[in-house]
Amino acid sequence: MITLASDFGTPYPAAMKGVILSRSEARLVDVGHDLPRQDVRSAAFWLREVLPEFPPAVHLVVVDPGVGTDRAALVVRAGDHALVGPDNGVLFPPARALAGDGRDVDAYELAVEDPRSSTFHGRDVFAPGAAAVHEAGIDRIDTLPGVSPADDVFEFTFPTPDRREGGAVGEVLVVDEFGNAVTNVPGDMLAGRETVGINGESLPVVPSYAHVEPGTRVATVGSHGNVELAVNQGRGEEAFDVEVGTRVDLEWD
Amino acid sequence: MITLASDFGTPYPAAMKGVILSRSEARLVDVGHDLPRQDVRSAAFWLREVLPEFPPAVHLVVVDPGVGTDRAALVVRAGDHALVGPDNGVLFPPARALAGDGRDVDAYELAVEDPRSSTFHGRDVFAPGAAAVHEAGIDRIDTLPGVSPADDVFEFTFPTPDRREGGAVGEVLVVDEFGNAVTNVPGDMLAGRETVGINGESLPVVPSYAHVEPGTRVATVGSHGNVELAVNQGRGEEAFDVEVGTRVDLEWD
Amino acid sequence: MITLASDFGTPYPAAMKGVILSRSEARLVDVGHDLPRQDVRSAAFWLREVLPEFPPAVHLVVVDPGVGTDRAALVVRAGDHALVGPDNGVLFPPARALAGDGRDVDAYELAVEDPRSSTFHGRDVFAPGAAAVHEAGIDRIDTLPGVSPADDVFEFTFPTPDRREGGAVGEVLVVDEFGNAVTNVPGDMLAGRETVGINGESLPVVPSYAHVEPGTRVATVGSHGNVELAVNQGRGEEAFDVEVGTRVDLEWD
Repeated sequence: MITLASDFGTPYPAAMKGVILSRSEARLVDVGHDLPRQDVRSAAFWLREVLPEFPPAVHLVVVDPGVGTDRAALVVRAGDHALVGPDNGVLFPPARALAGDGRDVDAYELAVEDPRSSTFHGRDVFAPGAAAVHEAGIDRIDTLPGVSPADDVFEFTFPTPDRREGGAVGEVLVVDEFGNAVTNVPGDMLAGRETVGINGESLPVVPSYAHVEPGTRVATVGSHGNVELAVNQGRGEEAFDVEVGTRVDLEWD
Repeated sequence: MITLASDFGTPYPAAMKGVILSRSEARLVDVGHDLPRQDVRSAAFWLREVLPEFPPAVHLVVVDPGVGTDRAALVVRAGDHALVGPDNGVLFPPARALAGDGRDVDAYELAVEDPRSSTFHGRDVFAPGAAAVHEAGIDRIDTLPGVSPADDVFEFTFPTPDRREGGAVGEVLVVDEFGNAVTNVPGDMLAGRETVGINGESLPVVPSYAHVEPGTRVATVGSHGNVELAVNQGRGEEAFDVEVGTRVDLEWD
Repeated sequence: MITLASDFGTPYPAAMKGVILSRSEARLVDVGHDLPRQDVRSAAFWLREVLPEFPPAVHLVVVDPGVGTDRAALVVRAGDHALVGPDNGVLFPPARALAGDGRDVDAYELAVEDPRSSTFHGRDVFAPGAAAVHEAGIDRIDTLPGVSPADDVFEFTFPTPDRREGGAVGEVLVVDEFGNAVTNVPGDMLAGRETVGINGESLPVVPSYAHVEPGTRVATVGSHGNVELAVNQGRGEEAFDVEVGTRVDLEWD
């Protein structure tokens, strides 16, 4: 099984599918191709959430604003899974989640030898790489031609909230397609609270959106386990006037 | 075969796919994940149109603005098909179409036992339910653990037009992605007519969009069999200034 | 294998999938359903780019602003591939690319006999046609009932640039989802140049977007081999104020 995730929209993902299907009988599963465009951190967040639901697979991940520069191409082994994509950090949050606690994540560099283009390594480098890993087997990545251990990869972590007496200071990590603004504040910090102060205003804490009237602004805990700023049947990021990176001050009422 | 339909965009549907693929070898087919957001009635309309084209399958349908409230989770058997989704009415218009005339539609409640989240039952309740139904077989739904006959489900019907002497009063049911405003008026009411009065203006009745010049407003009969307000190579809902629910007065010229 | 490409968005493609799956066990692969709406030329450009990556397949292509008029329905054999879609030219640029140099492209007309609708031949004509071609085999198209050689098809070619002393005059062929404006000027005309004059302004020529600071306007060569007007991490078509068909004057510095 090879999953495909990108910020390509239509029709570039089809070129990747064609390349893979010309080299492999692998089952293909679209994770989605409307990841936030050229937003490596949001892509990493979402893939960390969804890829661990899959059975063992090769995950092709192409959110690659640095395509055609000297950033490396990577294959990462994470438990029974492999990820293939650019060395811009996007692979590691999902890789660490796929590997699970205490298991190694092994990064390999994939040689980029004279690709057909400098602007579409999804088609010319990563899709062939994913097909090759699938055909060889995830436990045989190191036997593939053109693959060598990567000794210096770019990895980032998401910011952690600053816990203070009587509250916390966090930030918006991502905004989902419903407009829910997902913060980096762990949901368990809201456990047992009926209200919470958000940027100076007291809001109801609800288990899900429809516990309040349409249009009402709330704090809730999303499926990822983090505090979300949301509006029932509305768009949280607009109602709260926040975007990725906006500071969020929480005060316990 | 399991089909997937939702209003999730990217990337939430991938979590549902991963959950299913961890439990089943079922063939997955995307119906689409850009159904009108949180619009149960439009989703029901579109699924009633497209699902009957499929061979026997389990249809996972998640348009669920009430997620996390006490609305039930349902499995509905409709002929050789099953549907899995929330008890907000979205399953029944397609279920009745799938069952066909005079055949029963049987609704079962799916126990929701301490799901991982209160905001993503697509991943935590409905996808596991769809996989379980697929693995057991559509004729064995009632043998599944956690499944019991549902005795009180929410079902709606679409409004019917008011036929009057010399015309009819209907309304816009849905707007499609081309901007065509689909009414609840049966297309056969336009049979043999060359023009029709719509909200006080006489419009040509055409068999399809390109029978008039680009930009021309027309009445036509869409693939669902209903009267549509459309513009050749333009957006009908803008040109006619209508939206879902807008009253449409038809007068025979 | 049957690939599906359209400008339908959600949910109309699902009807085509259901029709095919009711008639065939074919593997289905979504090329994408957000092709530029009702834009036959852009669709033809993109399909010419991506379909040749696929192994032998039947390609269902529905961008069909003339649906329901007397334009014919076609099956086109191109090497080991077949394409099924409307006779508006959209099939031929990809068909010629799939066939390759010097190989024939054979066009057949598919009888349109009393379809269920006049507005959704994707469901009622082309999907059944694609399933039938798949089941019969691409080398047996001419044996299918309702199929006859097409003797007068509509075919267009993309405009070629006007090469002049000291430059060239081209035009924008398509704009991709990143906003890159793809011209009809072959990329090799930029070989060895560090800058190029575009509509009176000197721009850097770069191998890919991220060779300049975010927001910088550049000329580059896209994955299709043509000159693109682009902005690193921005939208080229906005920054250059161009759209499909806009004239582009290139001057060698």
